[in-house]
Amino acid sequence: MGIEVKNIKKRFGKHEVLRGINLEFVPGKIYGLLGRNGAGKSTLLNIIAARIFPTAGTVTLDGKTVCDDDSALEQIYLMSERNLYPEGERLKKLLKTTELLYGSFDYTYANKLAAEFSLDLNQKFGKLSTGYRSIFKLIVALCVPARYVFLDEPDLGLDANHRELFYRELMENYAQTHRTFIVSTHLIGEFANLLERVFIIKNGQILVAGEVEDVLAKAYLIAGPKEDVCKYSAGLNVIGHESLGNIYGNYVFGGVDDERHLPDTVSLEHLDLQKLFINLTNEKGEK
Amino acid sequence: MGIEVKNIKKRFGKHEVLRGINLEFVPGKIYGLLGRNGAGKSTLLNIIAARIFPTAGTVTLDGKTVCDDDSALEQIYLMSERNLYPEGERLKKLLKTTELLYGSFDYTYANKLAAEFSLDLNQKFGKLSTGYRSIFKLIVALCVPARYVFLDEPDLGLDANHRELFYRELMENYAQTHRTFIVSTHLIGEFANLLERVFIIKNGQILVAGEVEDVLAKAYLIAGPKEDVCKYSAGLNVIGHESLGNIYGNYVFGGVDDERHLPDTVSLEHLDLQKLFINLTNEKGEK
Repeated sequence: MGIEVKNIKKRFGKHEVLRGINLEFVPGKIYGLLGRNGAGKSTLLNIIAARIFPTAGTVTLDGKTVCDDDSALEQIYLMSERNLYPEGERLKKLLKTTELLYGSFDYTYANKLAAEFSLDLNQKFGKLSTGYRSIFKLIVALCVPARYVFLDEPDLGLDANHRELFYRELMENYAQTHRTFIVSTHLIGEFANLLERVFIIKNGQILVAGEVEDVLAKAYLIAGPKEDVCKYSAGLNVIGHESLGNIYGNYVFGGVDDERHLPDTVSLEHLDLQKLFINLTNEKGEK
Repeated sequence: MGIEVKNIKKRFGKHEVLRGINLEFVPGKIYGLLGRNGAGKSTLLNIIAARIFPTAGTVTLDGKTVCDDDSALEQIYLMSERNLYPEGERLKKLLKTTELLYGSFDYTYANKLAAEFSLDLNQKFGKLSTGYRSIFKLIVALCVPARYVFLDEPDLGLDANHRELFYRELMENYAQTHRTFIVSTHLIGEFANLLERVFIIKNGQILVAGEVEDVLAKAYLIAGPKEDVCKYSAGLNVIGHESLGNIYGNYVFGGVDDERHLPDTVSLEHLDLQKLFINLTNEKGEK
């Protein structure tokens, strides 16, 4: 059940953007799909939504190949970070087009959201600021009847108030519909509490997959005098380090051996998701 | 000394975007200029950088009117959130143009930053993603010799790693040059620790101005059972409220009277800058 992505590869010319992606989205969860700029997230989302074809691999929904099956495709909505709407078209008209494509559309809900976000639906898409383009696309995504909703950088250009309103509306929609949401965002710190499961993509491959809670349980900062920290970290999976004056810190992923004796000079604390992400995905040379 | 903005008004047709703005940027500080989408921030920045003219009011640098004085204007650099560069031009060429306009340019520093951000300066501007457009514009802003650097949404589209790198480079540049930076951003939570002073704009007017520390010292969340919270909050400047199950919270700005007795059922804690901002700038009807 759900969406299964099997061994997806995608090559643009000589550049292999996706190098064998396997993952699964089960019904009724909120996922984070995290990766750096250029990691291949948008390409993967476009393949799942059958907007582009993979070089190899399959995407199925409840066992049916998505790109061959209209009833499967109707269950998937992708809010793209790119602006695909015609600039001269009024927002109301664009909602009608969405209804035609997806068979139905919740206009009552759309009007409620537009009022909350102070968006006038009589405007033309091309007149909207970056923030309001995101808001319009979010409203569409929340109101289509699809069971799997993918949001690619939904927060681009939103001010802090609109982001808070969006998080609240997303959670309310989720609580009522039990649909599956998959969010790709760079604002990991703000989103972390909303996500149940997370996939981290690096260089076209899945680096980390799991429940957010389990992933964070394995992520630590070991801090103290450099010599003591390095001694304590020996044999652990050190993914980064930092120093502030005389304090040295090693970031570790994969858990620490509970048998180790923690010296009094060294402290051990858990990382938040954004800090873990940064350290896991930094390129060589970045600290 | 510094930049003085006096009674700036700006009207576009019937819409009064700025309604008498007074503020001052003194040398060697980092300012946050915060406001919602549409509050007038970008208009104000464009007026300060003499890219557009105000309907009324003046902007001076060390007493000289900026728009009349080239030597004053050379001391101001505005990194705009809009993309003003020709799409077909190579980045290297754009750096040369900047050098011509500002008299000098730190190429060594620009090359170091480009390497850190993995930006190839032989590319054309139009080929860059949203994130890399921001990165290129940031590099220019850090390398021009201007003493007052205005950054309008510098973090748009940056991934978490690049944002962290940017914050570090900004602080390093600031420590070495003691220039003045003015940052307009929606990512208030991440930026708060870097800012010394803050201006909050609402509906074309300055709502709050001051040292971040002093501003936050006056901002509280009062939480507990609704009846007790409302009783304790009586007479205070309540700027918003929230509830979670049986817990009710009032957001207060302007300090609380120390003489008041805090009941055991009620807790009092300080707000962070983003939460304060959201509550101060929410429109009626938004909660």
